Amino acid sequence: MKSSVFRVEEMQVPGGTESIVRGGRDLFPLLPKALSGVRRIGVLGWGPQGRAQALNLRDSLDGTGITVAVGLRPGSRSAEDARAHGFREQDGTLGDWLEVTAGADLVILLIADAALAAHHEQIFAVLKPGATIGLSHGFLLGHLTATGSAFPDGHPVIAVCPKGMGDSVRRLYQQGATVNGAGINASIAVHADPDGHAWDRALAWSVGLGSPYTFATTLADEYRSDIVGERAILLGAVHGLVEALYRHFRIEGADPVTAYERSTEAITGPIARIISDSGLAAVRTASGDEDLFDRAYSTAYGPARDLVAEIYDEVADGTELRSVILAEQRLASRPMTEIGGSPMWSHSAEVHARRGTPEQTVRYARGDDGAEYAGVDPLTAGLFVATMTAQVDEFAARGHAWSEIVNESVIEAVDSLLPYMHARDVAYMVDNCSRTARLGTRRWGPRFQAAYEQIALPHLDRPADPALIKSFLDNPAHEALAAAAELRPSVDISV
Amino acid sequence: MKSSVFRVEEMQVPGGTESIVRGGRDLFPLLPKALSGVRRIGVLGWGPQGRAQALNLRDSLDGTGITVAVGLRPGSRSAEDARAHGFREQDGTLGDWLEVTAGADLVILLIADAALAAHHEQIFAVLKPGATIGLSHGFLLGHLTATGSAFPDGHPVIAVCPKGMGDSVRRLYQQGATVNGAGINASIAVHADPDGHAWDRALAWSVGLGSPYTFATTLADEYRSDIVGERAILLGAVHGLVEALYRHFRIEGADPVTAYERSTEAITGPIARIISDSGLAAVRTASGDEDLFDRAYSTAYGPARDLVAEIYDEVADGTELRSVILAEQRLASRPMTEIGGSPMWSHSAEVHARRGTPEQTVRYARGDDGAEYAGVDPLTAGLFVATMTAQVDEFAARGHAWSEIVNESVIEAVDSLLPYMHARDVAYMVDNCSRTARLGTRRWGPRFQAAYEQIALPHLDRPADPALIKSFLDNPAHEALAAAAELRPSVDISV
Repeated sequence: MKSSVFRVEEMQVPGGTESIVRGGRDLFPLLPKALSGVRRIGVLGWGPQGRAQALNLRDSLDGTGITVAVGLRPGSRSAEDARAHGFREQDGTLGDWLEVTAGADLVILLIADAALAAHHEQIFAVLKPGATIGLSHGFLLGHLTATGSAFPDGHPVIAVCPKGMGDSVRRLYQQGATVNGAGINASIAVHADPDGHAWDRALAWSVGLGSPYTFATTLADEYRSDIVGERAILLGAVHGLVEALYRHFRIEGADPVTAYERSTEAITGPIARIISDSGLAAVRTASGDEDLFDRAYSTAYGPARDLVAEIYDEVADGTELRSVILAEQRLASRPMTEIGGSPMWSHSAEVHARRGTPEQTVRYARGDDGAEYAGVDPLTAGLFVATMTAQVDEFAARGHAWSEIVNESVIEAVDSLLPYMHARDVAYMVDNCSRTARLGTRRWGPRFQAAYEQIALPHLDRPADPALIKSFLDNPAHEALAAAAELRPSVDISV
Repeated sequence: MKSSVFRVEEMQVPGGTESIVRGGRDLFPLLPKALSGVRRIGVLGWGPQGRAQALNLRDSLDGTGITVAVGLRPGSRSAEDARAHGFREQDGTLGDWLEVTAGADLVILLIADAALAAHHEQIFAVLKPGATIGLSHGFLLGHLTATGSAFPDGHPVIAVCPKGMGDSVRRLYQQGATVNGAGINASIAVHADPDGHAWDRALAWSVGLGSPYTFATTLADEYRSDIVGERAILLGAVHGLVEALYRHFRIEGADPVTAYERSTEAITGPIARIISDSGLAAVRTASGDEDLFDRAYSTAYGPARDLVAEIYDEVADGTELRSVILAEQRLASRPMTEIGGSPMWSHSAEVHARRGTPEQTVRYARGDDGAEYAGVDPLTAGLFVATMTAQVDEFAARGHAWSEIVNESVIEAVDSLLPYMHARDVAYMVDNCSRTARLGTRRWGPRFQAAYEQIALPHLDRPADPALIKSFLDNPAHEALAAAAELRPSVDISV
């Protein structure tokens, strides 16, 4: 990563340093210089990322003369919402996607993966000469590689990949407006740089989104960690874990609300908050029963690591992407079923309504089995932290940068996705995320559930593995997380 | 299918007829003529199929002068067991696999899929000119296609694919010795026929194994239905279903033994027996509660069919095979975990010990909820039969021959695999079947479990779908099963 506009800093990470750029609203005056040559930014798509990025960029570039326009497919049902947010056909800030593409110096492709796979050639065909192609994750590279194709020559290709949901990208940007900014960290990648300005352009885009800090990766690494992460600890593994734990607690005699609180509620509430505030090891202390935590951790780490490795292999190999494409073909004639019908979620409203009541606080402070834990069930905590650490370790073994590892395995979870799941619920989140993520969660969530049910939970009576616990306590991720925490947004997200 | 030795009959199936050859010990005197030119058969591998086929062929060819030799890899731990079964280095009936290959006129490749993928070129290199290559399923064709390779020219390539486990192939052959034979139906395929005798050679091999009837397919169809079937109703779906049902009954208050009996025991015992004796629709009547059966059927059919279609797409596309190869590479450094630790299986011995006791008979005749069912829990029955029918319908929609459909979806289940699971248990079966099947079950079983838990079981209170039930009752599979039943082995398997 290099810049002639922004200050590139070195962040200490295990085994060395990584280059990063710190964000902040005080940097917005630098954006026009960094975006030199860009007079018009076209954002294609009005999903959660499209909406958040178009709005943040428009706000950050206000008064600079650089225009942000939204491009939609003919007949798109999103046009009305885009108009309600101030994008207008009359002033050219809302229009047909191909017309918006043809008029933009930077085209940010935020349409769904399947649409991107189907329509990228049409889009490429109408690009202005030398216009920059912008991506927010590496899916298209994976698709082009799988189909023996490539990006068009002569165009810079850059990526800015917020490590959180679109919804969080917008909310934190707004909530941090008065404190020089808050937002979601982002990775950036430069895949093609024919004019030599690609890094600054990508950094400007990232700073304009409100990223507290920006780190460098490659499109291939981003794609792998992003797709693996959402199939593992970010979505798939969480879903599998709470389904397994809910039934486990129910069979042990817990009523539905207690089973929900000890599984889902513990993870999306206190565990996420503790990790965000104090790191992974703090969950062990807060669990109030380190022996049970350690036994749970020891039974779950191995099978969870095996699964993360399996997902990684299939993503890197193209098998997972192939499966998504096959699913999209099938889904043309049979709609995707929802998973929100699972028994646990019928109790979401009841659990949410109890938050902050004396009854819930008592149960939270003292588990129904008498163990003290401030809302952190030690069994749930051990299984969850083991899975998160398994993903960290597998990414490290595959050579990812530490910023990418902790953002894609920990920070995105505890600062973006889990708070969202806490506000809605896990199944709602799965049924309403991107189709690629949704398909992946349906594919891998049940594998995690089975691993916890068939391998981890039946062996809870085995003593903890001291070497595994030592390796957890000494994990370099703690140092990387602490370094990232120093750059943390000064505002906690409120969903 | 054509033969100048055996009588080819027409079997009535929905929409027409299919050519079959009926087996029987009275046909063994025809084997030398059908095997014209084959003096020596080499069976490579001593897994369940290798052992069963080597022993059955040796017995069937006794006195004909045609020798059966077993070929093993250097240092194979199976040599001792092969010797104990009468194969000897001294008389050339046991030896190194490449030496056995080099001396054989028909080489039957029954080594593990991964070994076949790794070593088929070595084997092909030492074949006698014109020697026949024999397979028992289409995996190698899938692998060769995926790697842009092919079978060597000038060699007949045939397949005989028993529709049951190796263990059943041997047991039924022995148990039927006094009644002109019993055994496992087999499909045959001729992939290359340079000398014009391939069909008779394949038929001789199938008759020699004891197949009650032999039907024709192609290697590609065989591969797809075989791999999909074991991932769906034959293994994966059964495992997912009983895991889901066990927890469902437990959460509803059933004790472990009752939950086991209403799920696993009902399927592997009475349901399998009823289907084998009287067909699929008889299970509905026997369940004693057709309304609950119909509601269960209606909630499960859709998600089960979606999953079978997904598996089929991934098998046909090569994605599933790619995943098996990736798994084999990972497993070189991390052993496959067993699934037998799941709570249900700790009660297998207790459930098995209760069989035939008054207590179990009472519970079987009258469910713990008071409903009468002769051991056939109507909920379990509805979900299971819906899944089996979903596979039948998906295979029919993909154009498979009816013999293949009913053998791969129904007969192999109720006459071979379920009786084996009844004798051991489901998890034991999964942990001890072929690696390709084991990997597939671990991959897809949890998907079925999740579909039952998240989509089917939560909607049991919805009324049954009359059109779906009518389509089940009118399903052409009943006619195909009845036709196959007329050719059924005259001996019930005893495991």
